[in-house]
Amino acid sequence: MMKIFQQKIKVSGKRGFHLITGKIIQALPEINKITNGICQVFIQHTSASLTLNENADPTVRKDFETWFNKSVPENNEEFEHTDEGADDMPAHLKASLLGNSVMIPINNGSLALGTWQGIYFCEHRNNGGERNLVITVWGE
Amino acid sequence: MMKIFQQKIKVSGKRGFHLITGKIIQALPEINKITNGICQVFIQHTSASLTLNENADPTVRKDFETWFNKSVPENNEEFEHTDEGADDMPAHLKASLLGNSVMIPINNGSLALGTWQGIYFCEHRNNGGERNLVITVWGE
Amino acid sequence: MMKIFQQKIKVSGKRGFHLITGKIIQALPEINKITNGICQVFIQHTSASLTLNENADPTVRKDFETWFNKSVPENNEEFEHTDEGADDMPAHLKASLLGNSVMIPINNGSLALGTWQGIYFCEHRNNGGERNLVITVWGE
Repeated sequence: MMKIFQQKIKVSGKRGFHLITGKIIQALPEINKITNGICQVFIQHTSASLTLNENADPTVRKDFETWFNKSVPENNEEFEHTDEGADDMPAHLKASLLGNSVMIPINNGSLALGTWQGIYFCEHRNNGGERNLVITVWGE
Repeated sequence: MMKIFQQKIKVSGKRGFHLITGKIIQALPEINKITNGICQVFIQHTSASLTLNENADPTVRKDFETWFNKSVPENNEEFEHTDEGADDMPAHLKASLLGNSVMIPINNGSLALGTWQGIYFCEHRNNGGERNLVITVWGE
Repeated sequence: MMKIFQQKIKVSGKRGFHLITGKIIQALPEINKITNGICQVFIQHTSASLTLNENADPTVRKDFETWFNKSVPENNEEFEHTDEGADDMPAHLKASLLGNSVMIPINNGSLALGTWQGIYFCEHRNNGGERNLVITVWGE
């Protein structure tokens, strides 16, 4: 029979890309009771985001920060939303480019991630502080 | 017991980014019967998109339009798909960068959006006309 | 009553964007027993991705490859993750820009895609080889 579980957790980190796969798995032990299902992780913010990418070499996460800073530069003279600091408007754009949630299938009690896939928490502000995540799991 | 509801609505707007959170909530009153669940909003088009971002200052939405126009410029001489106008191929690219759906957790009868999160309908064509959305809600 | 089905399939293709809508529909005949539901397609990799876009003119998919190669160029001297080849780090970035899953509503036994929407498998490596997809369908 289909069931659904929900849990809120907090994460934080300096500006950049952080692996949080372990934290997500710990937060919802109900995952291991599910044969076929889905896990959604949602971030309740507009200047931080979530994505899936390589879980091994940390330079991948460093190069993400490099590329996004170059492609969505601060101090764009055409921007009008500048009151909250030079890092704010680029943070909003990066958040929508990467997305505010990830959705991972559950198979036989585990997240069906590929060998190299990890969950990235992407902090786009200089001082983002604590960020709220809502994790929802459903299946049978 | 898990249940699921589906509803179609139409939206339209000039080229740019538009807040539609209220319209989505009105379309599915069944949300308030759900304790834990998910709401997906899906756009049935390839030159308009959906994302979540700041719901307060309208200059955020203006700066989105500015940045996307600069980053996915019209009249790219390398493009081959040009028969439907200069705004068409950039619209397809913007749609895939932002995504064709948003997924929001439902908690205690309401969308579990963060304080500053709103649903953006992103119209990337000059004359997009009416756009079809499919809203699906499930949970218990 | 809500039910859920899951299926794994493999896809492959040369670097670029490929339509796989038919393959997805064939893999899960259970879709036609569902009145209201959702189909998620998930790719278990970090250098290939999935998106929805135009299913008609193949030059759209060619222009996608052109724009992404220009916007996420190889041989960026600032990148540190370069051991796996010049196409590797750009592939990781493209994968997160486009996303690792698509979610499509199911209505009356069919995927509720718009007239022009198709599912793209996006291969960002020069020699990506076989890629694993997990398809999950739920609804009633």
